[in-house]
Order: sequence, then structure tokens, then C-alpha cells
Amino acid sequence: MVTVRGWVTHLRSSGKVAFVVMRDGTGTLQCVVVRTQVAADVWEQFSRLTLETSLSVTGAVRAEPRAPGGYEMGVAGIEILGTSPIDYPIQPKEHGIDFLMDNRHLWLRSSRQVAIMRVRHEIEQAIHDFFYEREFVHVDTPILTAAIGERSGLFQTEYFDEGFAYLAQTGQLYGEAAAAALGRIYTFGPTFRAEKSKTRRHLTEFWMIEPEMAFYDTNDNMQLQEDMLVYIVRRVLDRRQSELVELERDVSKLERVRGPFPRIEYSDAVSALQAKGSEIAWGDDLGAEDESLLVADHETPVFVCNYPKAAKAFYMKENPADPRTVLCDDCLAPEGYGEIIGGSQREDDYDKLLARIHEEGLPADAYGWYLDLRRYGSFVHSGYGLGLERTVAWICGTPHIRECIAFPRMMHRLRP
Amino acid sequence: MVTVRGWVTHLRSSGKVAFVVMRDGTGTLQCVVVRTQVAADVWEQFSRLTLETSLSVTGAVRAEPRAPGGYEMGVAGIEILGTSPIDYPIQPKEHGIDFLMDNRHLWLRSSRQVAIMRVRHEIEQAIHDFFYEREFVHVDTPILTAAIGERSGLFQTEYFDEGFAYLAQTGQLYGEAAAAALGRIYTFGPTFRAEKSKTRRHLTEFWMIEPEMAFYDTNDNMQLQEDMLVYIVRRVLDRRQSELVELERDVSKLERVRGPFPRIEYSDAVSALQAKGSEIAWGDDLGAEDESLLVADHETPVFVCNYPKAAKAFYMKENPADPRTVLCDDCLAPEGYGEIIGGSQREDDYDKLLARIHEEGLPADAYGWYLDLRRYGSFVHSGYGLGLERTVAWICGTPHIRECIAFPRMMHRLRP
Repeated sequence: MVTVRGWVTHLRSSGKVAFVVMRDGTGTLQCVVVRTQVAADVWEQFSRLTLETSLSVTGAVRAEPRAPGGYEMGVAGIEILGTSPIDYPIQPKEHGIDFLMDNRHLWLRSSRQVAIMRVRHEIEQAIHDFFYEREFVHVDTPILTAAIGERSGLFQTEYFDEGFAYLAQTGQLYGEAAAAALGRIYTFGPTFRAEKSKTRRHLTEFWMIEPEMAFYDTNDNMQLQEDMLVYIVRRVLDRRQSELVELERDVSKLERVRGPFPRIEYSDAVSALQAKGSEIAWGDDLGAEDESLLVADHETPVFVCNYPKAAKAFYMKENPADPRTVLCDDCLAPEGYGEIIGGSQREDDYDKLLARIHEEGLPADAYGWYLDLRRYGSFVHSGYGLGLERTVAWICGTPHIRECIAFPRMMHRLRP
Repeated sequence: MVTVRGWVTHLRSSGKVAFVVMRDGTGTLQCVVVRTQVAADVWEQFSRLTLETSLSVTGAVRAEPRAPGGYEMGVAGIEILGTSPIDYPIQPKEHGIDFLMDNRHLWLRSSRQVAIMRVRHEIEQAIHDFFYEREFVHVDTPILTAAIGERSGLFQTEYFDEGFAYLAQTGQLYGEAAAAALGRIYTFGPTFRAEKSKTRRHLTEFWMIEPEMAFYDTNDNMQLQEDMLVYIVRRVLDRRQSELVELERDVSKLERVRGPFPRIEYSDAVSALQAKGSEIAWGDDLGAEDESLLVADHETPVFVCNYPKAAKAFYMKENPADPRTVLCDDCLAPEGYGEIIGGSQREDDYDKLLARIHEEGLPADAYGWYLDLRRYGSFVHSGYGLGLERTVAWICGTPHIRECIAFPRMMHRLRP
């Protein structure tokens, strides 16, 4: 006899035999109550159950191929721990997204949401393990940062007598300083964009993983991205099969994520897109449609590398082979899930970096400490940022990233 | 012959034999240049080296018991990658703390700071592994949160048309909602306090780990805290010996961190402190001195449990054995490092929780979703918050937590 505690997710009864499906966060268990085999008060307890009642059930567990999970419990006793009124908001029917988001604290209990959260955790642990095995050092970079010039989309807060602090959009610049101290590092934390975007791929608060590696060039950088993505996908396939089934994910598509990933030069990508009918011109950034067109021919993620300088950030290293461009890459997920990584080799030449800071109209004094990294023992280094929710969306096969974080924050969504 | 890249940390020369100690973030290597055994240009390259020059050194590595790390390299070639002017700010001498903090991006390269960062990482990975092995789900709770009533010490930022958002001081309330969905969860993220504290144990931005467990009572909760701390300390002892040596940590004190940890009722703690001469009265919170007095007799962390209701937060469960108190615990680190964990069983009775919200003058409607957790299948549950930097400070034996995070944020410190 075992005792299991959890919450009711399904109820049905023939009058003689009753079924209670319960969940406890790790899985579901079908419990069977046979009226003639239990005490009268147990049958009476069953009749009082409602959706999301919390309860403790005691009985014998046996193999039952027809039950979800392959086991069921023959119930001997039921104890109600917490009642649940009949008006539980999330019912087994279609709800609008605003309603579900308003009730996110309850919606999270649904089997699909549980599955996404468990896949997200597996991805997170896989990322920590991947870097730990490779002797990277995890470094937590600050969220509250001093002004580093006019940049758009910043959240700001008063900071004692220091003026305003700004919520970090990236930990990269700090990551570069840490790489000079620790060799190879990665950050893992929330980042913020105060942008009025309402697409399915934008949150105002999202998690990023940003490795930064001393003595890695842009090719080493892309190899690491590839190794990491293959590792993550393999790990989820190995350990979260039942969640992928719950999500009705076509795992054959994930099974095909193996290296090497194609590396397409930006200029070649533009030509290929133009040949496919896109109106993109050399110098433009790729739009979402361009990204989808480009990955359509591939089963793995695709790197687009060496973008025009003007389309990219000031800290990217000039491409010696074509100084109109920089040594960088965007990694596009397959199946149209879009960009999940942006990476680059960093400009390690003091004078060139300073010139770029001036060109962008950024205040050089605010970047004094960042320039110091090029002043005292400058070093070839590269890094990238992986968007966690976009990666979860791709691996789960979820079109909108708002379901890929427990409590999403969007332009019109600050609650619960 | 191998090639190693890194930065110069020490230089000395007899005119005939020269030593370069270099670091690469994972360790240090002593390189020996014998003037008569190398080409003239190699000796000339040596003479151009300065502190923090980045370089690539090629040679044969051999065992050398007198060298740091037990190995040294006989140099055949030196390539300077990045020069470093002679005015490198951090010299082998005493610097004031403000100067070091102003140069935190460079100070991080020092061997002591590298050791602290590596121990911090080991603690972080140990925490992830501890919870992963126990099938907890990692959940990222939001930083940007809507108002939940007047609370002090909040950073605030304008949030589109939604009014102000506040930076989270804790993820706990969200963690409770997630525990109802996922059973046992933990958060791992930055938290914020806009407090004008200038002690050695306060940061405005610090990292917290907050597990929350369905169907755990206060005793289960303390047991988990104990198991986790023993696991973390053991892990650092096993894998970060050389860093603990660098930090001159008395590891015999860490070796004695084994369960069971004493559990002292608050009321008994007050009596014991009064007997030791403290002026504490029943109802007061423990001060830093009280904490030190209390742990002085113990070699392990100590739990102080069941504090007066008035001294603690509204969400803690009333103690059935003494309703003046709540079911909670503070875990105090040994050696006077103070409180590293605060935990409690949560109030799971809807009416009692609502009454406490009213007593505290909090707006009940803002807590609607939190009250829902007691409305739909309420459940016994408990959780705690571990302060990461304080834990790092204790394990490293570092008196001030400002060295226990890469870029600390304090009242007068927002840069670099």
C-alpha cells in the first residue's frame, strides 16, 4: 500500500466504478475506486471531489497498460486535503489567451504547461552541465548598470545618489572582463528590453545565456554554438520523451539536429534570398520571412555569418577579408523558429574599438573599463547570446514564446 | 612541445635565467627561459614583457615540485599577443578598497578573486545538481512585478501603460504557484533591495535560490536545507581544494559541517542569549551579535525556529503549538557568518492568510492570485531562500560579501 498526494485533474464514474486521475507535478496517476470494495465513507469522499481538489490517496499500485503512464492505483482510502470550488477557472474547454494569461498561476497546472516547464528545466540543466564539463566558469553579471550612452529600449530606475540605473540588456561587456580573468565563462540570467514589440518572439524580460571565451575566434565560436545545441537537443530527447509526447512534438525533426550546421556568408544569403524572390538588399538585416526562406532547405540550425558592419553592434570585430563586414554569426533554428543565437568575435584592437565608439556617438568615458580590456593584455575573444525562451519554443514546438516562461512579461502583461 | 596562451602575472630574471608566471583563468604556469638555450629574439621578447601582457608560450612541460602547481615549462618560444603598459593599475601592493572596486574589471584577474569566482561557480553547480538529482524543477520567476502594496526598499521603473513595475525582492510567491503545478521547484536568480545598508553583508542586487515544496512541512523544510548545505560544502571540499588553499581557508572547519544541525526554538534562543548577557527581549529579532553568540558553541550551521509572528512575514504559517509564533527557521552559518537561509511553512488556510493580509494593511486584490493557491486545492507547503553571496562568503572565509560576486552593487557602487 502506498500513499500519493496531489491534485485532481479528471473525474468520471459509472456509479459502480469511479476513476480519479491525479497529478503531483512529476506525473499523473489513475486511481480506481470500486464501490463494492471500499468502505462507504471512501465512496462518499469520492463524490465530494472536484477539479483541483488536493488529496491524499492510499492504495495498491499495479501495472495497467491502458492507464496513462502504464500504472493505476486500486484505491483503499481517500483524504481530502484542500477543497476546490466548482468554479475552477481553467476548465477542459477552449479559453482565450488573455483569460489564460490572467490566470497564469492556475494555467501552469495544465499538462501542456507542465511539460513545457519540465523541458525548459532540462534545457537549463543541460546548459549548465555542458559548460561545467568544459570547465567554463559561471559568472553572474549585474542587472543594474550605469549609463553607457543613449540606447533605446532601456528600463530605468533611480539609484540612490548615483542618478539612474538601467536594467541590463546583455551581460556581454561584463562577460568579456570576466573572460580576461577566468578564461572561458558563461552568464545565465534575465535581460530586459523596454520595446513595444508585440510579436510571438518578444518578451520584455527574457533569459539569456552568454558564454565568452578567451582565445576563441569566430570559427571556434560557431563550433561551440553547434556543439551546445546538439548537446541540448540530444539531452531533451534522452530525458524528456514523455513531455515531448505530451507536446505532440515531431521528434524526428529533433533527431536530425546534428553537426555540422551550414555556415552561410551573409552576402551569399542575400543572393540566395533574392533568387527566392525576397526583396532584401545587401546591407539590410534579415527579416523573419527571410530567415524562414533560408532555413527551409535545411534540417539543422543554420549559421548566417559576417553581416555588414552597419547592421551590427559596435563591439564586433572587423572582418579582415572584407572590412565592410564584421566577424559574427546569427544562428537560425530550423522549422522557421528564427534566430536563437547571436554571436561574434569581439574587436580587440584598442584604436578600432575607440573609433567605433565615436562613430556610434557613444560616450568613450563610460566605456573606459571596457576599453581597458584592450589596453592591458588584449586578446582574441568571442562569445554569443542564446535566447532561452526561443530555444524552448523551438524544442517544444510552441509557436509563441509566452508559454515558454512561467510568468511572461510583455508590453501589456505585468500580472500575475 | 605545447603552446599555452594567457597573461603574465609575475616576472623575474637573473640575467641568465628568467621566470614568467602566466595565468589563463584555469590555473598558473611557471615558464623558464634559459638565455643560452633560446634564440636571441626569444630572450628579447622576454625583456619586453610586463604585468598582464597577453602572450603565447611554446615549450616542453616537465614536473617540477618547486613550481606552483607542480609543473613548469622550459620555454622555446614567446609570442606577445597584447602589450600592457607599465602602469597596470593593480600592482603587487596594498590598494584601498575603493580603488580596487573602481578597477573591479581588472581586480577580478587577481588570484584571490579568481579563486572566489571558481568556488562560487562550484556552489552554483552543486545547487543545480542537488535539486536535479532530487527531481525538483527549476523555475525562473519574474524580476518585473506589479505592485503588491507598500513595501519598503523597492526599485521601481515605468512600465509602458501599466504604471510602475517593481524589481522583485523575492520569487517566493511565484514559487508557491509553481509548486502547485510542478510539486517541488526552485528558483535561482537576482533579487533587489533598495536599502541604504552599508554593512559587510548587504548588496542592493544579490542572488537567491528559493526552493518551494508541495507537501513539505517545516521539519521537512529544515531537513532539506541541512542536506543541501552539507552537499554544497562537501562538493567544494572535494573539487575546489586548490582554490581553498589560495584563499587560506581553514578547511577543518568546513570538514565538520555534517548533520544533524541543532534546531533551537526562538524562545530557547532568547533565554540562552539572555544568560550570555544579551539584552534581547522576547519578540525582538536576533541582531548580528546575537547570531554570533548563538553559533559560538557549534561547529555546524544552527537553525533558530518559530519566531514571533510580529517579527516575520505575513505568509508564514501560524504555529499550532504556540499561535504567538510562526513555523519558520533562520539558518545561521558557523564562525559568525550570520544568517544564510530564511525559511518557513506557508500559511495554507485561506481565511488566516486573508486576515494577515488585512492586518498588515496590504491590498487584498493585488494578492488575489496568491490567495487562489489557498482557494483551489490548498496544500501544506514550505520553502526557503538561500543567499548566494553570503554562502560564498562563509565557504570562502571572506568577511565582506562584496568580493563574492563579480560586479557588486551597493548603495554607492553602480560602476563598473
